[in-house]
Amino acid sequence: MRAVVERIRTDGRVLPGGFLRVDGFLNHRIDPGFVGLAGDALSRAFADARPTCVLTAEAAGNVIAYETARQLGAAALYAKKGATATMARALVCRLRSPTKGDEVDLCVSADYLCAGERVLVVDDFLHRGTTSAALGDMVLQAGAELVGFGFVVEKRPSGGREALARFRVPVLSLAVIVAMDADTGEIVFAG
Amino acid sequence: MRAVVERIRTDGRVLPGGFLRVDGFLNHRIDPGFVGLAGDALSRAFADARPTCVLTAEAAGNVIAYETARQLGAAALYAKKGATATMARALVCRLRSPTKGDEVDLCVSADYLCAGERVLVVDDFLHRGTTSAALGDMVLQAGAELVGFGFVVEKRPSGGREALARFRVPVLSLAVIVAMDADTGEIVFAG
Repeated sequence: MRAVVERIRTDGRVLPGGFLRVDGFLNHRIDPGFVGLAGDALSRAFADARPTCVLTAEAAGNVIAYETARQLGAAALYAKKGATATMARALVCRLRSPTKGDEVDLCVSADYLCAGERVLVVDDFLHRGTTSAALGDMVLQAGAELVGFGFVVEKRPSGGREALARFRVPVLSLAVIVAMDADTGEIVFAG
Repeated sequence: MRAVVERIRTDGRVLPGGFLRVDGFLNHRIDPGFVGLAGDALSRAFADARPTCVLTAEAAGNVIAYETARQLGAAALYAKKGATATMARALVCRLRSPTKGDEVDLCVSADYLCAGERVLVVDDFLHRGTTSAALGDMVLQAGAELVGFGFVVEKRPSGGREALARFRVPVLSLAVIVAMDADTGEIVFAG
């Protein structure tokens, strides 16, 4: 986890408006070495919970969920934005994107999220927790077992951890940011 | 490549309207074992071209591009649907989704697709080639070198290969479908 913090400290950029730019290695141009480290840390942390499925919302968190699933020997499941032509019965949750502002329906095929499944929800960022809480609700709606939430970066002041508290499962973030200063570029991590 | 064909033959489903449902292992619920095989085949096929970057359009092709990049020791780059708040200067291409019908802008940050880069374009499907041709044009627009196109599944009758011919680079598909019958469920592969 220290390596994840150090990479964000070195290559992350604080932008006006409280945005953290990590798109040079995490969610636009992807460094497989970094994603591999993050997947290793998340898979080790949740191995004892024996997840059978790692769920995320497309698209930014896809590779983190995939790497975590790959290292756990589990499947990865991507909630899609809008039902597609090839999707049969779907579990649907509507939410508003915090970065883009538009409303989207998150959809998971009911064929692929079933009772008996042990599900870990993973994403690149824990911000306000809106998307992850929607995914958590989908897991419960499907009658599957939610075993935890894992994130690469948590923005602690945004309150995402509080939004997920009602699920009463472990919430792990590899890097927890407690403050950012757009003027100086300083990022303050917890711990 | 035989393993890829066999998996599609076994677990793929032909739907009315010419859709192939492979969302149980390739693009919705993901089997990392299958994606690993596909990434291995694509990375071996293009290793001699020494790609520094594997480009795809979010979201379905993300993990295939990521696995190919990971096995090549290259970066993965995801063209995003719509510019985001953290994206500075962007290369943009507008296109219409063949499965969803809506128009989207594909955007790549100009910071991450530069002259001197050797770029392999990868996606899960080669259908009409619209998305891949747009990505190819972005590569040329950036002054980078396009080294090839790689796909997991090609629907030969849709003409995607012809749409990419103008780029004069190798086009490889791991499984080439020449015909599908929605009534019988039969999928006919080339070769």
